[in-house]
Amino acid sequence: MLHSLLRSVGTASRTALLGSSAGTKTILARPLLKARWMSSTAGKPIECFAAVAWEPKADYWNNALSVEKVVVQPPKSGEVRVKVTHTALCHTDAFTLSGEDAEGKFPCILGHEAAGIVESVGEGVKDIEVGDHVIPCYQAECYPEDQASDHCPRCRGYRVGKTNLCGKIRPFTGSGVMASDQDSRFTAQKDGSKLWHYMGTSTFSQYTVLHAESVAKIRKDAPLEKVNLLGCGLATGWGAVWNTAKVEEDSTCAIFGLGAVGLSVIEGCAKAKAKRIIAIDINPDKWEDAKAFGATEFVNPRDFDKPIQQVIVEKTGGGVDYSFECVGNTDLMRSALECTHIGWGQSVIIGVAGAGKEISTRPFQLVTGRVWKGTAFGGFKSRSQVPELVDKYLAGEVKIDEYITHNRNLTDINEAFELLHSGKCLRCVIWMGNDAPEA
Amino acid sequence: MLHSLLRSVGTASRTALLGSSAGTKTILARPLLKARWMSSTAGKPIECFAAVAWEPKADYWNNALSVEKVVVQPPKSGEVRVKVTHTALCHTDAFTLSGEDAEGKFPCILGHEAAGIVESVGEGVKDIEVGDHVIPCYQAECYPEDQASDHCPRCRGYRVGKTNLCGKIRPFTGSGVMASDQDSRFTAQKDGSKLWHYMGTSTFSQYTVLHAESVAKIRKDAPLEKVNLLGCGLATGWGAVWNTAKVEEDSTCAIFGLGAVGLSVIEGCAKAKAKRIIAIDINPDKWEDAKAFGATEFVNPRDFDKPIQQVIVEKTGGGVDYSFECVGNTDLMRSALECTHIGWGQSVIIGVAGAGKEISTRPFQLVTGRVWKGTAFGGFKSRSQVPELVDKYLAGEVKIDEYITHNRNLTDINEAFELLHSGKCLRCVIWMGNDAPEA
Repeated sequence: MLHSLLRSVGTASRTALLGSSAGTKTILARPLLKARWMSSTAGKPIECFAAVAWEPKADYWNNALSVEKVVVQPPKSGEVRVKVTHTALCHTDAFTLSGEDAEGKFPCILGHEAAGIVESVGEGVKDIEVGDHVIPCYQAECYPEDQASDHCPRCRGYRVGKTNLCGKIRPFTGSGVMASDQDSRFTAQKDGSKLWHYMGTSTFSQYTVLHAESVAKIRKDAPLEKVNLLGCGLATGWGAVWNTAKVEEDSTCAIFGLGAVGLSVIEGCAKAKAKRIIAIDINPDKWEDAKAFGATEFVNPRDFDKPIQQVIVEKTGGGVDYSFECVGNTDLMRSALECTHIGWGQSVIIGVAGAGKEISTRPFQLVTGRVWKGTAFGGFKSRSQVPELVDKYLAGEVKIDEYITHNRNLTDINEAFELLHSGKCLRCVIWMGNDAPEA
Repeated sequence: MLHSLLRSVGTASRTALLGSSAGTKTILARPLLKARWMSSTAGKPIECFAAVAWEPKADYWNNALSVEKVVVQPPKSGEVRVKVTHTALCHTDAFTLSGEDAEGKFPCILGHEAAGIVESVGEGVKDIEVGDHVIPCYQAECYPEDQASDHCPRCRGYRVGKTNLCGKIRPFTGSGVMASDQDSRFTAQKDGSKLWHYMGTSTFSQYTVLHAESVAKIRKDAPLEKVNLLGCGLATGWGAVWNTAKVEEDSTCAIFGLGAVGLSVIEGCAKAKAKRIIAIDINPDKWEDAKAFGATEFVNPRDFDKPIQQVIVEKTGGGVDYSFECVGNTDLMRSALECTHIGWGQSVIIGVAGAGKEISTRPFQLVTGRVWKGTAFGGFKSRSQVPELVDKYLAGEVKIDEYITHNRNLTDINEAFELLHSGKCLRCVIWMGNDAPEA
């Protein structure tokens, strides 16, 4: 186990790990963890391992994270401390790590697609108890009583139900701190440096502290090593289809970019009974996956010497009904809009573009009836709807297992970023304190 | 009467008019017209006056049109010849006349906001008879039987009801010809030059030929000198609010540009019971009009040294629910989008931008829940819904009279463009063969 933890960490981290395992109470192996999270750690700082992003790194796939010991303070009022059991990597983590994210604040602990178990709860937390299984949600959801007051300006009055982008704790999750004291709960064990939170989740740590508004409580029979994917990518793709675009039976859809999000869009379109599902990617190796998730056609833009939007318009006799950009490339966002049909075509932006990048088109595209929109977390209300997605998975209505192409230990997280970057990985699940990947 | 017809035409036109009135059957005065349209002209070419746009002119307000005699051929199969009694000027006419419209085809007869009386009908025309009062519609609407077939690919199958942009005759109206023979029905009397149709309407002529799909039949008690405005601007503004944005009670709206369309958007928002209606224009003289139509606040971007979107976001505690661009300026289109609220803000582009102009924004604006759309003819189905708007007007539910600031004879049409350009005119109605403006 220790060997596996050390396998692919750089020299500095390796030394730190050896140092820690030689003389302290560092939490690593499952039996030890089990004993601790039940009660003995409540109210006390916890030392554990985390993958720290000390600074942005353009080549984020090249050993950018340092797996080392951190200290996690106990939850304050309205907060929950969670033992993260599994976290996946998402391109948004890579995006922030690369320095492209204008909101990125370093040093920090990244990670936002995870599952875990509640270790302790702060004062005043309702409906969440020690031992609950949970999914951290980067998009928080306020409580009904907040919605009736000024506590949540985005969910008030006639606006209730208009958006999933609850704003109650957004100023804090957006700046890497907790709301109650606008400070962090993480420090580096080696020198006491403050480590900022990320997206209100910071799941690349064996323990993390969350606002109660960011915690979706799920049923205990759901496999945490699978449902962690519901914390971001899959929910985003399905929701873009079902909530944002509201794809109808018999419609024609185009999906740009066939990573995990693009494939979940394809799956969502198939569930919505779309007639034609056109999968678009410059990597022909993606075709098999796309087909398995429900795509009916594959188009490689490199096979044509004209703009891809023109190819799609010709192929569909005027354009698709719905298109989805799942890459984060602003040129593709334009193509995705312009390949939709005059009169009713809708294009949904899902990918996250680099800082300062802009989309553009001729306004005539919109005046003639196309609609340009975007989605964040697929329009799902996190705390209330993520548990429903867990139900759907357990009922066999949606896939999760098929998106997980790799499993790794926390110490191998840099290898996982390399896999993500290579395009050969859909989702790599990081097992935070468990030797399953070795089994 | 003749004097009035000559009053403000340029020298060349003046000569032409004198020449024609000296020796022919040119249709000018009402008694003469009345006798002709009832029956005697059916099946024969009609000579009448029209304002011809011989070529684009950047200073469109400077005597750009030539009022002269034209010959109008009888309607062919599926066509209707209409005596235009009144036509208003719209900025889209000015836009095409200025040369900015990529689709503009010269020489042509402009005009698309009109009312008139059916003079004769071609073979196979259903539901339209000689003497019917009609409003020409630049956006055609096919028949239900077309919708069940390949005749109208945009209105077929599951797409029925998704758009008002029926495509059945669009290729022809977009290229200045009639569908049956892909030719024009207009020639210049002086030299036989072919004159192209415009938007399938060409209402700056005392007689015009329309596709039956472009003809909305209206009740005979509606005053043609008023309801001609339903052919474009007002329907567009109201529809942008009711059909495209679907503005809700208590919402907050921002309207950029306070011409007739902007004011009709304001009227539409007021009818939809919006709580705050923010009128935006760089001309403070517009405030009184805006208030009369229902605006609750006025903002002049020149009063601030920061972007207008920032002003509106601050003024509304996060942004408006709905915004409307009614100018055709791509920078304003961006401002209009970016002044809407995160999570649910919708911005509707109504203005027509110059050829080659593009809109742009950061994709984050859309990913965080804003929706960018546009509207053409306010989403109204023309033949079936324009008659309903006439009913609304006659029931006192919507204004029309208040938008008409000027009335002129056909010979004064260049003065009318000057008025439009000056910003002192909302709508100027051209009386095509009637001396009312002289009264």
